[in-house]
Amino acid sequence: MLNVTVWNENRHEKRNPKVSEIYPNGIHGTIAGFLAEAGFQAGTATLDEPEHGLTDEVLNRTDVLVWWGHLAHGDVKDEIVEKVKRRVLNGMGLIVLHSGHFSKIFKSLMGTSCDLKWREADDRERLWVAAPGHPIAEGIGEYIELEKEEMYGEHFDIPAPDELVFISWFEGGEVFRSGCTYSRGNGKIFYFRPGHETYPTYHNKEIQRVIVNAVKWAQPANRAYPVYGNAKPLEPISAK
Amino acid sequence: MLNVTVWNENRHEKRNPKVSEIYPNGIHGTIAGFLAEAGFQAGTATLDEPEHGLTDEVLNRTDVLVWWGHLAHGDVKDEIVEKVKRRVLNGMGLIVLHSGHFSKIFKSLMGTSCDLKWREADDRERLWVAAPGHPIAEGIGEYIELEKEEMYGEHFDIPAPDELVFISWFEGGEVFRSGCTYSRGNGKIFYFRPGHETYPTYHNKEIQRVIVNAVKWAQPANRAYPVYGNAKPLEPISAK
Amino acid sequence: MLNVTVWNENRHEKRNPKVSEIYPNGIHGTIAGFLAEAGFQAGTATLDEPEHGLTDEVLNRTDVLVWWGHLAHGDVKDEIVEKVKRRVLNGMGLIVLHSGHFSKIFKSLMGTSCDLKWREADDRERLWVAAPGHPIAEGIGEYIELEKEEMYGEHFDIPAPDELVFISWFEGGEVFRSGCTYSRGNGKIFYFRPGHETYPTYHNKEIQRVIVNAVKWAQPANRAYPVYGNAKPLEPISAK
Amino acid sequence: MLNVTVWNENRHEKRNPKVSEIYPNGIHGTIAGFLAEAGFQAGTATLDEPEHGLTDEVLNRTDVLVWWGHLAHGDVKDEIVEKVKRRVLNGMGLIVLHSGHFSKIFKSLMGTSCDLKWREADDRERLWVAAPGHPIAEGIGEYIELEKEEMYGEHFDIPAPDELVFISWFEGGEVFRSGCTYSRGNGKIFYFRPGHETYPTYHNKEIQRVIVNAVKWAQPANRAYPVYGNAKPLEPISAK
Repeated sequence: MLNVTVWNENRHEKRNPKVSEIYPNGIHGTIAGFLAEAGFQAGTATLDEPEHGLTDEVLNRTDVLVWWGHLAHGDVKDEIVEKVKRRVLNGMGLIVLHSGHFSKIFKSLMGTSCDLKWREADDRERLWVAAPGHPIAEGIGEYIELEKEEMYGEHFDIPAPDELVFISWFEGGEVFRSGCTYSRGNGKIFYFRPGHETYPTYHNKEIQRVIVNAVKWAQPANRAYPVYGNAKPLEPISAK
Repeated sequence: MLNVTVWNENRHEKRNPKVSEIYPNGIHGTIAGFLAEAGFQAGTATLDEPEHGLTDEVLNRTDVLVWWGHLAHGDVKDEIVEKVKRRVLNGMGLIVLHSGHFSKIFKSLMGTSCDLKWREADDRERLWVAAPGHPIAEGIGEYIELEKEEMYGEHFDIPAPDELVFISWFEGGEVFRSGCTYSRGNGKIFYFRPGHETYPTYHNKEIQRVIVNAVKWAQPANRAYPVYGNAKPLEPISAK
Repeated sequence: MLNVTVWNENRHEKRNPKVSEIYPNGIHGTIAGFLAEAGFQAGTATLDEPEHGLTDEVLNRTDVLVWWGHLAHGDVKDEIVEKVKRRVLNGMGLIVLHSGHFSKIFKSLMGTSCDLKWREADDRERLWVAAPGHPIAEGIGEYIELEKEEMYGEHFDIPAPDELVFISWFEGGEVFRSGCTYSRGNGKIFYFRPGHETYPTYHNKEIQRVIVNAVKWAQPANRAYPVYGNAKPLEPISAK
Repeated sequence: MLNVTVWNENRHEKRNPKVSEIYPNGIHGTIAGFLAEAGFQAGTATLDEPEHGLTDEVLNRTDVLVWWGHLAHGDVKDEIVEKVKRRVLNGMGLIVLHSGHFSKIFKSLMGTSCDLKWREADDRERLWVAAPGHPIAEGIGEYIELEKEEMYGEHFDIPAPDELVFISWFEGGEVFRSGCTYSRGNGKIFYFRPGHETYPTYHNKEIQRVIVNAVKWAQPANRAYPVYGNAKPLEPISAK
């Protein structure tokens, strides 16, 4: 059974009653809940736990890590980020949600600023499927419509995704690459845009389906880590 | 259970005793055999059957089609090629093997000449894994070594693959993009280089593992085919 | 000096006074005009000329071919399409405009249906730059706004572009991959969405700039065509 | 005229007479020399200069930066790396050579370990052109042959390149993705494998041609940097 850890900074939930009303168990609780229903072994970890809940033991048993952060990116310790990155390069899947675009772990894996345009103005959002055969789009219609969401607009300063699964339309006139896959080392990464804390986005069944699909897609391939460093020749070398 | 059809022109097997000795049930029989062992519902179809064995009924129930051809690409009827192409665009997976690079179906889906360098000279081949986290490389070591194979060399006139999984080294001095994924319409395509008819390549366990992995990877996503054509607006248009 | 040929079916111009009013010299005339101003050697060719104006002599001297078609894709002779394709694979650049998505040449080079959603309803269009460092976006602001255009919407059934330069927002609620680069054989291809015949889109200075940039980008690299076929070994082979 | 700065750690040249014999003016001097001959404004910068020779003034006027490092990656100051990265994201081109794969700047822009296999054993290397229409391959034959070079072998832990221009064959049995393009922010990056300090690789005319081509390709597009951050709607929002 696939082992998923849902990480959340869990700060908005403590400060803003609007958020805790929508997510009484925290964003992490809601996400871990529907992942468990989908048949995964789903745990949670949050910023204020020791080692942000991401001990070696937790990281080593995690097949796919889901990441939500916003206010407190700067409070995430560099050594924990370094450990998470090493695990991703070793094969752990990583699903980065919404404002996680500015997390240390995502910026470090992308190598770019990950900056974007944004607006909190109740834009209607429509996420169009651009890769209809992709397993992450399984079970999804032509688009997912969200009545109100925060707007994220291009230019989104990311490397060109390996596969572009969703493109968002926003009522206020912008577009956004909303579902992006990457391979880094042995690990697979999926960035998924929606999920501003003041909207009930993670209660949406289609959004849940995308995240469930993404977890399956991001699971590690069962292989030894590549051997690097000095290598003996496999064939005779004529100059010797 | 995934439904796989293994198509083979089945001509070398009838003409060349060396080939029928290596593949007494035909290349298609050997491939269907190890696919069935891997748990797929595996059937075969060959050039000389009516409609080349690819009736509407067969194509409609096929989730993934495996294609081996060489001598007789020109004998494959254009209307069958057109049907196979439509099924791929509708979601059927396609695994094109070795000399299938010059098949009508592959050339038509690629849009290029699919030409390459080649040599039958017992080159040693070593297929290096270039995408260690890819599900098609699961269970495979750093490389697959084939003692003797036909050489295929760059430039290989294909579109840049969506993902490059294997790169071959040849003893005679060439390299080749040997494992290439593509998405076309709703369908996923994998081109896999090895498998010249006079070598026992499809009896190699690692080669079999790659083909098994590729079948799983290429299975259709469960979604409705996109709606094309004239579309009513989803939002009010100001000029009206 | 770069040699550009602008091909147009030139049918709407003859039938619809609205079109001939906007483009008194034809769409091809307008495009060739601003390309000449930009310093290219720009000629035109149209469907009703012998060999559609694309004689061997014309094709051989053309560095970059621009293609506009809509009503009469079916009237373009297959042997001419085949010649154009061969020239593209040999290095000639190809810029496919708007309804050219359904041309024989584009579909043949893409290998997919190239289908899409469409609507003639005076949608406002905004083409956002998704690849800010790409030479095709040089001199362009954050987006190009077109007051009224035909809508093209996802899913657009194309292979994932090598580079996605523009994404369109449409007032009626859709998005579209509007500026897509491809490499096929030795040739470079750019698909650019805007340009419905009843709007003055090709008089827009930013649209003109994109097409000028694309012509420069698509120019052939000065190299011999690769050698394909049987190849002698470059190194000794041990089995011999 | 394009402004190129060639950066070199310049350590092997001071320690190893074999290296200073091959490159009496340093690797940077040789590279700047042939770039100047090709018509660029070419300067140099080295590790032991103040700010490693990469003052704000130098960086701001540099269109394309060439980077060679090996022994002393750890001695490059983080704040200089950060400045170089910012310039790349703002549009400056970056050509990373050979052992620069392990430089702080390359690893930071890639987000992966950039690790690989290596061997100093006088392997023959053959760099095959995998993208025959790419401007970086202009004027190059089917392959570049280097009589003796250090071997770099897969797996090379990099993100899948945007475009794969060269693949190397090594006598000892390995392959390597040797010419890789990337886009990061507004900047273009080219990694080019050959150039071990004890071989006269940068005196090779074809290797020089590739670097000259890469500098042209990597030049900044002339555009304003994108605007990020809070954005007013461009269209009315219904919920307001």
